[in-house]
Amino acid sequence: MFDLIIRGGTVATASDVYAADIGIEGGVIVQIGRDLGEAKEVVDASGQYVLPGGIDSHVHIAQPSGEGIVMADDFETGTRSALFGGNTTILPFCLQEKGQSLREALKDYHALAEGNCYTDVSFHLIVSDPTPSVLGQELPALVEAGYTSFKVFMTYEALRLSDAQILDTMDVARRTGALVMVHCENEDAIRYLVGRHEAEGELAPKSHASTRPIAVEREATHRAVSLAEVADVPLVIVHVSNGEAMEEIERARRRGRKVIGETCPQYLMLTADDLDGMDWEGAKFVCSPPPRDKASQDACWDGLERGVFDLFSSDHCPFRYDDPQGKLNPKGAKHFRHIPNGIPGVELRLPILFSEGVKKGRIDLPRFVALTSTNQARTYGLYPRKGTIAIGSDADLTIWDPNLTRTVAHADMHDGADYSPYEGLELTGWPVTVVRNGSVVIENGKLSDTARTGRYLSRKRSSFASTAGPLPVA
Amino acid sequence: MFDLIIRGGTVATASDVYAADIGIEGGVIVQIGRDLGEAKEVVDASGQYVLPGGIDSHVHIAQPSGEGIVMADDFETGTRSALFGGNTTILPFCLQEKGQSLREALKDYHALAEGNCYTDVSFHLIVSDPTPSVLGQELPALVEAGYTSFKVFMTYEALRLSDAQILDTMDVARRTGALVMVHCENEDAIRYLVGRHEAEGELAPKSHASTRPIAVEREATHRAVSLAEVADVPLVIVHVSNGEAMEEIERARRRGRKVIGETCPQYLMLTADDLDGMDWEGAKFVCSPPPRDKASQDACWDGLERGVFDLFSSDHCPFRYDDPQGKLNPKGAKHFRHIPNGIPGVELRLPILFSEGVKKGRIDLPRFVALTSTNQARTYGLYPRKGTIAIGSDADLTIWDPNLTRTVAHADMHDGADYSPYEGLELTGWPVTVVRNGSVVIENGKLSDTARTGRYLSRKRSSFASTAGPLPVA
Amino acid sequence: MFDLIIRGGTVATASDVYAADIGIEGGVIVQIGRDLGEAKEVVDASGQYVLPGGIDSHVHIAQPSGEGIVMADDFETGTRSALFGGNTTILPFCLQEKGQSLREALKDYHALAEGNCYTDVSFHLIVSDPTPSVLGQELPALVEAGYTSFKVFMTYEALRLSDAQILDTMDVARRTGALVMVHCENEDAIRYLVGRHEAEGELAPKSHASTRPIAVEREATHRAVSLAEVADVPLVIVHVSNGEAMEEIERARRRGRKVIGETCPQYLMLTADDLDGMDWEGAKFVCSPPPRDKASQDACWDGLERGVFDLFSSDHCPFRYDDPQGKLNPKGAKHFRHIPNGIPGVELRLPILFSEGVKKGRIDLPRFVALTSTNQARTYGLYPRKGTIAIGSDADLTIWDPNLTRTVAHADMHDGADYSPYEGLELTGWPVTVVRNGSVVIENGKLSDTARTGRYLSRKRSSFASTAGPLPVA
Amino acid sequence: MFDLIIRGGTVATASDVYAADIGIEGGVIVQIGRDLGEAKEVVDASGQYVLPGGIDSHVHIAQPSGEGIVMADDFETGTRSALFGGNTTILPFCLQEKGQSLREALKDYHALAEGNCYTDVSFHLIVSDPTPSVLGQELPALVEAGYTSFKVFMTYEALRLSDAQILDTMDVARRTGALVMVHCENEDAIRYLVGRHEAEGELAPKSHASTRPIAVEREATHRAVSLAEVADVPLVIVHVSNGEAMEEIERARRRGRKVIGETCPQYLMLTADDLDGMDWEGAKFVCSPPPRDKASQDACWDGLERGVFDLFSSDHCPFRYDDPQGKLNPKGAKHFRHIPNGIPGVELRLPILFSEGVKKGRIDLPRFVALTSTNQARTYGLYPRKGTIAIGSDADLTIWDPNLTRTVAHADMHDGADYSPYEGLELTGWPVTVVRNGSVVIENGKLSDTARTGRYLSRKRSSFASTAGPLPVA
Repeated sequence: MFDLIIRGGTVATASDVYAADIGIEGGVIVQIGRDLGEAKEVVDASGQYVLPGGIDSHVHIAQPSGEGIVMADDFETGTRSALFGGNTTILPFCLQEKGQSLREALKDYHALAEGNCYTDVSFHLIVSDPTPSVLGQELPALVEAGYTSFKVFMTYEALRLSDAQILDTMDVARRTGALVMVHCENEDAIRYLVGRHEAEGELAPKSHASTRPIAVEREATHRAVSLAEVADVPLVIVHVSNGEAMEEIERARRRGRKVIGETCPQYLMLTADDLDGMDWEGAKFVCSPPPRDKASQDACWDGLERGVFDLFSSDHCPFRYDDPQGKLNPKGAKHFRHIPNGIPGVELRLPILFSEGVKKGRIDLPRFVALTSTNQARTYGLYPRKGTIAIGSDADLTIWDPNLTRTVAHADMHDGADYSPYEGLELTGWPVTVVRNGSVVIENGKLSDTARTGRYLSRKRSSFASTAGPLPVA
Repeated sequence: MFDLIIRGGTVATASDVYAADIGIEGGVIVQIGRDLGEAKEVVDASGQYVLPGGIDSHVHIAQPSGEGIVMADDFETGTRSALFGGNTTILPFCLQEKGQSLREALKDYHALAEGNCYTDVSFHLIVSDPTPSVLGQELPALVEAGYTSFKVFMTYEALRLSDAQILDTMDVARRTGALVMVHCENEDAIRYLVGRHEAEGELAPKSHASTRPIAVEREATHRAVSLAEVADVPLVIVHVSNGEAMEEIERARRRGRKVIGETCPQYLMLTADDLDGMDWEGAKFVCSPPPRDKASQDACWDGLERGVFDLFSSDHCPFRYDDPQGKLNPKGAKHFRHIPNGIPGVELRLPILFSEGVKKGRIDLPRFVALTSTNQARTYGLYPRKGTIAIGSDADLTIWDPNLTRTVAHADMHDGADYSPYEGLELTGWPVTVVRNGSVVIENGKLSDTARTGRYLSRKRSSFASTAGPLPVA
Repeated sequence: MFDLIIRGGTVATASDVYAADIGIEGGVIVQIGRDLGEAKEVVDASGQYVLPGGIDSHVHIAQPSGEGIVMADDFETGTRSALFGGNTTILPFCLQEKGQSLREALKDYHALAEGNCYTDVSFHLIVSDPTPSVLGQELPALVEAGYTSFKVFMTYEALRLSDAQILDTMDVARRTGALVMVHCENEDAIRYLVGRHEAEGELAPKSHASTRPIAVEREATHRAVSLAEVADVPLVIVHVSNGEAMEEIERARRRGRKVIGETCPQYLMLTADDLDGMDWEGAKFVCSPPPRDKASQDACWDGLERGVFDLFSSDHCPFRYDDPQGKLNPKGAKHFRHIPNGIPGVELRLPILFSEGVKKGRIDLPRFVALTSTNQARTYGLYPRKGTIAIGSDADLTIWDPNLTRTVAHADMHDGADYSPYEGLELTGWPVTVVRNGSVVIENGKLSDTARTGRYLSRKRSSFASTAGPLPVA
Repeated sequence: MFDLIIRGGTVATASDVYAADIGIEGGVIVQIGRDLGEAKEVVDASGQYVLPGGIDSHVHIAQPSGEGIVMADDFETGTRSALFGGNTTILPFCLQEKGQSLREALKDYHALAEGNCYTDVSFHLIVSDPTPSVLGQELPALVEAGYTSFKVFMTYEALRLSDAQILDTMDVARRTGALVMVHCENEDAIRYLVGRHEAEGELAPKSHASTRPIAVEREATHRAVSLAEVADVPLVIVHVSNGEAMEEIERARRRGRKVIGETCPQYLMLTADDLDGMDWEGAKFVCSPPPRDKASQDACWDGLERGVFDLFSSDHCPFRYDDPQGKLNPKGAKHFRHIPNGIPGVELRLPILFSEGVKKGRIDLPRFVALTSTNQARTYGLYPRKGTIAIGSDADLTIWDPNLTRTVAHADMHDGADYSPYEGLELTGWPVTVVRNGSVVIENGKLSDTARTGRYLSRKRSSFASTAGPLPVA
């Protein structure tokens, strides 16, 4: 007798779509087939898809954002919003502040997360201060301990690393098998353009976009892949916003480099014009890289279809809008440089890609699953425990109503922000029931009492961090 | 009680690898999981992979080859060889000869195949005479009847179509949802070069390669994708041999075209130097396009890894070597133009890709499955009945020993040719047991008595023949 | 004492711009410098540029155009128009009609030209019927006799050659050092699209453009450069209209091929929208390839600046509009396929490029001279006799007023058509005086009595027809 | 009566080659033609080319090179060597050392040059310390004063600027019309690789090449053109060594950027293997970027032919080899990082390009003149005073024997180094007589008594520093 059976649904993986029941025991998928027999609990999925739970590898929670600004989500609200968006695992960042050790930072983030998570979580490490002891001792030990991915920034004064520091960090990855993620924008070029904008008195939110033009992202992208070529490591280019940066990824691959590309909902759905709203409303759309134009949106869709992108993540980074500690903080309300960068998105990532991508025929359902779950797990060392529906994998399942149409309203969201950049957007296809580790944590839109029991996940090396031979025979 | 259980193996699909048993009833996979219970028959797969049966969509059997030359395989030997190579379905061609109707041609090929097949089979239609009645009546009716793919040739005097004829044929595909495959080499350019070689007395087999240089294939590839752009249809470019032709496929995709690329074992393992053997031995390697050089081999491997290629097929096209009706026919033994084009390969396609690709870490096992089975089924309208291991799919399974090492010897092959172009090659990873439609047709290398019961498969439209929306909920 | 001195002007060549007088004797430039002394005749060029006489290598005169349609210019009007446009040499085509020998065709064109030319002329040979005797005897003899360039067509039913015929013609060029020009559009693709337009009843002039889309030109361009690669000859791609065809030229060059690119005024100044005029007015703009869009215009300008194009020619091909033997012939007025292809342009080529290119800062004056004269002479074997201002060169000089502004009106033109496609365009910079072979043939806009004394020019091989070593020391 | 006539030669410019005499008065070319009459002095150039004097815009003289190492040429030996190599003008660098003002630096270099030059000279400014006063006051004033080009470095600890500093310097160029030159190699990446080499004990000269791989140059090249795109200025990429860096230049041009490319003799004639000589002999070939391989040489030749490169300069940077103050200084003899970077080349630049390029048919004579003189003058604001043979230009002429064959021996050179990297190379085509400002300074290989009278040249803005309209009418 199974603990749980998901009955009558259409199962989808990164390669297949088929009708089957799923039998679960001990939080794990143990049987897939017809007429599975009895179970303590049965969820009826007829007329619905049964998908691997969404994995969002690019989520910011509870990070400080400079000048005392507070990010709008703590682990409770952030993971709750993620869960309602059909995700069963998210990977937020643990931010090392300058002068801080990584262990200290981890301690803080673990303390914040502990007991407050509605999804499983695991941390990427943001390296902002690669001292000899960080590079020589902390990072290697932490990779061994299951923190197998680092993120480095080429922009933001407080975070940016020099090329030398990036190379040193990549070298740790080379030696330990960790995977490096890079935020690619050239800080010096941005500051140069900010100076020119300031000289012209161009301080409104739209200047956020014009001080971070495509050339600035393309430059940093090419530099990042070149540094990875010098250090001989694979690389993740996160939140790619346009065709020129995509071309750098493709060129690197043709040179034989392993480069993983990620894009996000904002680069499909928003444009720089959104930053040009009345009365500083454009601040709601300030994120980096900024949304571009229609041609860039088309390029990003094309990249999802053609395989330039392996990952579709949210880059959820929520701030309140109408709040002195949010977008409209005293300085931000006068100068675009002080508007905190980032927008919420973890709850809408899957509905947006399903409605705009799958429903409109741009991508098929297996590709949807690959981009939002399977590739995420493979890239960050969670596969096959997470990211698929297969015997032995964790029973993390999102039951999806492909025909449910809803209009986005922030009032219906579960995050800590006070607006959604997608307010008013009509989307068809939403998660209705979520199973995490074999437990039904949301049923028909209602949170279960025991939902806040997400676990911390120690991770293996990425499937891409070294040349992998055939998977071992069991 | 199941009809059959495959127990203890490691199951691989195009996305996943996991340990599970497979339960089969009525020729169909009905359960995947642990501890599946009892069955009439059990196959032990411990220590082995359980793969979807290989599908080879590019196989020539029993075709006439001009000047009275006889192809070395009939359906019995051809499908037997395929089965021993781990394939459960192959797609040979039905060749329309000039002046013949397609229905007549089909009648002949069905008659030849009927009762003689060790694998399931389905036919592509080679259109060599696109008369108004062929275009207007026969083809549309045959697409409805399940012959959903056509092949056209840009080379070979007896087969080549003009651009106008190709466009007319593509237009039928546009209207019916059929899929067009193209052999891309510019016949006029080849004949020009043959003339120059003849003038120089360069008649040995190696001139086969130098009269079909890369430019000739690249030209035709670009022309084919451009004609498909004009007619607005997707396209399969078969047997791509080099990086320049690959670039045409990638450029077309960047223009938004749907182009499916295929490569074959000969472009990974052979080079033009092989055609320069002593005593006309080079004739053994005469095929079109010809094998190129090391750089082209590397490009083709790169294309398998990067996704330029969706299909890895054999282009099995066997002729006997030491035979007056084969490569060394009276004319062929004096002039390369009369050496029949083609080499055997259906039995070694999977071992070559596994040993050289998976074992050497160039591709992983899911990609191996995708290239050799799942994508083949999706491309040609056989999916999900064929091409995967999923509930409801046909129980076509190849049990694969990843550690078995054998040296290729034609004496061990099961085709009708008298040599293998890969003689002496050491490969690790071979099929040992094959299940087709739920029956064990080869067990530990031995053919069962009832193995020659392959069926004819009527096919749906290709998944790529039109913009497909989400797959329907069951 | 010189025969003629051009005094006080600013001399421009393909590399230099400087103030100097020019001394002429015996029709040849013999001295360049300051204070040249006395002459029988002096032309004052102060405040004006002294340019090498324009050479237009792409001009159609007195060609039959199918269905009894008469081209609007004979040699008298055509060369007169050219001369008023600042040209001293033009290269019209001698069209071989099917069944005709080249010698017969030449006899006819020479007879038409003899005694009627206001400029020097030389003929390219259009090969439309490459019979063995044409290829084996006529062409080689004619190359020796100074007809050193052939043109082949990939479109137009009456003119198009097969790939085999193009290769055979290229092979003559390979053996004789002649240069091949190609009109690149895929006739079969055009006819396929015409069929689809006819089925939809889309018969107005604008369908001329939509039946000849960019893909059709790009395809033929790549095919032409590939055939030239197979035959190993340099090549001229005439009248390139867009960036995709340009990319084929650049790719060929990166493969090491010698490819010369040409564009024309219509691809800078017109768009396909011009073909969509009221009451069949679009017929005035019907030419092949058709004008495209703004992006293609920008690409062509970019190609002039970056060196993708070596030649800027008119493709002058005039027909009357309001005339039963012109654009509005009985059939043409009902169906775009019967509108004769071509527009006048020989008189405005230089003013358009000067006003839109030099005056607007897109190209400098030496590049203007190179594109319109020097490169034309070098490409077609007339250099250094023609195409520059240097000691020993023919005294062919156009004195140019860079500040004269005029509005284009066909009433002011000197060709045989009844309209100009550029009517109403304001241009700054016009030729005022023209010296040909040392004679002042136009002085301040007035034709001299003896102007109709243009000579026939036998030509050397192209500078690009073979790998040229250093020019010999005199 | 002229001061000087060059009689009987074949004159070559960037566009033309023709037989003519040249009449000179007051140091300026005043007449070109036949039978020029009498002169105080006549040079017979029959059987020889008369070329514009070579201009070498990339020459290092008398610069300090760190650690007390002395560059092997002062202005006397450096300009003497240049003159013997057929150059009449060179552009050395004025190096600002950290903490120094540009005016101080200029004072020093002018003092060193004053009275010691065999050629005309002008200085580029190397900006190594872009303080506010340098950017705000000194540079703008110096541009007005005729120092119209700056060079910035992306490598060398003592010289490299940050991206912010490069942008600030480019911004001065944007506002003043100056032209920026960039040395493109990523210093951080080099240091990372040096660290890895040191860890492996790989300290011999060949490690100089492997610590500066192509990726390091390609990265910096793309970054430089991107920064120029952000600042909206044209750019010179100096000493390009390979096809990947060339591709960055071509891509930038396709994006509409003005980028001027330069390559040097070492990238045509040497390879990294030369650095792997016995007994530290490889030190003789240490320069940056390092020579690459045969494919890179071919790419550079291709770039000279196709127009990727506008400039061919020497990057003359001489050090003695067998000298404790040269390549084999105490530290340099033990560790490649201490071998001073640079090789001599100013005397062989023209003979190498003529013999290997013109004589071997890769480029024609006008292109030779353009690359070595005319484009150099246009790029750096010396045209039309320098760089051509035209009325009104300075009478700087190199009389060139195209058939003279000599074998390179450092014993015959006139620079201050003690070796030539091209020792033993046989070259055909050498300068025999040099006229500078109308004076015969070398006659048949012999220096005149008054040769050391080269002048300092104040320069105009580059022709490329802003969008130039048509040149003004005189």
